[in-house]
Amino acid sequence: MTAPPRSLTEVDLGDLAVGCTILAGGGGGDPRVGLLMALHAVRERGPVSLAQLDDLDPDDLVVSVGMVGAPTVMAEKIPNGDEGSVVRRVIEQRLGTPLKAFLPLEMGGLNGVLPVAWAVNAGLPLIDGDLMGRAFPELQMCTPHLHGISASPAVVVDERSQAVQIEAADNIWLERLARGTVSLLGGCACAGLYPMTAETARLPTITGTISRAVEIGRAIRTSTTHPLLALDQEVGLYPIITGKVIDVTRRTADGFVRGHAVVEGTDHDKGRMVRIEFQNENLVVLEDGQERATVPDIITVLDRHTAHGIVTENLAYGMRVMVAAFASPEPWRTSAGLQVVGPRAFGYDVDYTRVEDTFARIS
Amino acid sequence: MTAPPRSLTEVDLGDLAVGCTILAGGGGGDPRVGLLMALHAVRERGPVSLAQLDDLDPDDLVVSVGMVGAPTVMAEKIPNGDEGSVVRRVIEQRLGTPLKAFLPLEMGGLNGVLPVAWAVNAGLPLIDGDLMGRAFPELQMCTPHLHGISASPAVVVDERSQAVQIEAADNIWLERLARGTVSLLGGCACAGLYPMTAETARLPTITGTISRAVEIGRAIRTSTTHPLLALDQEVGLYPIITGKVIDVTRRTADGFVRGHAVVEGTDHDKGRMVRIEFQNENLVVLEDGQERATVPDIITVLDRHTAHGIVTENLAYGMRVMVAAFASPEPWRTSAGLQVVGPRAFGYDVDYTRVEDTFARIS
Repeated sequence: MTAPPRSLTEVDLGDLAVGCTILAGGGGGDPRVGLLMALHAVRERGPVSLAQLDDLDPDDLVVSVGMVGAPTVMAEKIPNGDEGSVVRRVIEQRLGTPLKAFLPLEMGGLNGVLPVAWAVNAGLPLIDGDLMGRAFPELQMCTPHLHGISASPAVVVDERSQAVQIEAADNIWLERLARGTVSLLGGCACAGLYPMTAETARLPTITGTISRAVEIGRAIRTSTTHPLLALDQEVGLYPIITGKVIDVTRRTADGFVRGHAVVEGTDHDKGRMVRIEFQNENLVVLEDGQERATVPDIITVLDRHTAHGIVTENLAYGMRVMVAAFASPEPWRTSAGLQVVGPRAFGYDVDYTRVEDTFARIS
Repeated sequence: MTAPPRSLTEVDLGDLAVGCTILAGGGGGDPRVGLLMALHAVRERGPVSLAQLDDLDPDDLVVSVGMVGAPTVMAEKIPNGDEGSVVRRVIEQRLGTPLKAFLPLEMGGLNGVLPVAWAVNAGLPLIDGDLMGRAFPELQMCTPHLHGISASPAVVVDERSQAVQIEAADNIWLERLARGTVSLLGGCACAGLYPMTAETARLPTITGTISRAVEIGRAIRTSTTHPLLALDQEVGLYPIITGKVIDVTRRTADGFVRGHAVVEGTDHDKGRMVRIEFQNENLVVLEDGQERATVPDIITVLDRHTAHGIVTENLAYGMRVMVAAFASPEPWRTSAGLQVVGPRAFGYDVDYTRVEDTFARIS
């Protein structure tokens, strides 16, 4: 079942960036810089070749790529756009075999769009899929980890093309060493992780997520009803509150941005108030001290009018928003998945409840 | 001028360890563990082959090896003795050429002895020489740095055989990234640094320092006069004070041990008091607030009776000691050398004065 390789138009790339603000769950970094770099790369060197894992030979080597660190830093410390070529060189030298494709590490924010630039600049196709189906803050929070696949040898590359290649004892050590390296490099850097053969990658990869993000963005852009309704049609949205951001606290440290935002209800939600806590991504929504929605479901703060997602580093007082959640990709809803990315993995002592069991769909 | 390869007897290894407590200038780590590992390796696998750079072909690859981090941690977090084999694998994979010999990074403390174990276990000869001629705390404080030779690609390996390979923009970045990695790994780890061809290595390498350390140890062990006099004959000792350690402050952080010791004079030095400040190695001796001896000269706290050096992590209240200094290797006394390891490189706003211009020899 080999699909013909396709590429992405400039309009597609814009839609991809918008789709990635939705799937991000607040993390992954503001896609704006990534979109500009992707457009620049495509204009300079031609379109990205979007591939399926099935297009590759079973032994072909792929590696996932993404920015790691605090999105607050990514907004200022900008990649050079060619980190992918360094990742390619280091991984090829280490494994002694040519790299055949990049795979987005996560499909959220900047990290859904920037791999387009890296792939084009490194002359490699980009697999239409990723290892999270959304964005998560830590490097073991990837589907291959659920299958016992090692993230090592991994490589961290900064915008000066400095490279740190890591062979860790396990994926928790990899997260620790890569996160520390990213902190030393100034708070964010590009990483190449989970090198796999195409055959191995077929098992964990969540497929078609670039296409999905493009479709979400297109649905919002071309909507003839309210954009929130169009988005609902795409992802199945469970609104939590409609209101105004009245408080945001963020601190950037140890390669993460952590904090919370408070949204006060307006309109039919007047009198209610929720608190969203985040570690790069939105982790939980609390109301009256109770967890109302949690990871791994995707909690997104949406602009009330445009239905674009607002990443955590851009949240600001006064924004008119809808806080909504929608279903996590299935691998994270299994008991193995919940061990890695469920509420307890982030220190919340509650059981996970599927968003569809708590809230009603938009009406 | 090819010298026949020689090896080191078990007695030589004991002498090497003692010599390394002298050349260390207080740093490099307690050689005891290194000596035990070297003896174990030699008993299990046969003697170390001690080589000269001239024994190698000009294109042969060598790499320097040593423990990096806080000696206080090295005393508890013990190497597995085979870190050298991982260094060898990573460097060979990175450079695509076989490694032909190890070179001690520094000739001081643990780091003068442990490379024997690494060389034997990795099946490589060990070059009789090093890149400091003593011990220093930071990784740019190596003679190749004075010649513009890059420490990268470098590798940090821990006792679990985790490996982090670093390609830094310059040697200051390399120190930052390697030091941070070592901290993440628990405070100390083995490093492979400054990969060079034998031809390149000839320029910066301080030759014959293993032999020199063995001779120092042998002179102390076989002395028929006071061991301090035998040591004086070997290194040209400038005594600073004879007395008792009355205060030690140490803190272990960021991959270093920093602190100071106070020695109160006894005998003919009664009424005097000096303060020794250290960052792994002894940096300065202060008396009445004035720097009396500084890096790069080798400041050593000697046991008054045995003339063995006491490394900084072992200094303790009540020890009867002679604090003495002797001349630094010449490369560090040049203006380029002093920029890297002179008192100002460690934050002391004084000019370097050669120890022989301040003190008189032992009499």
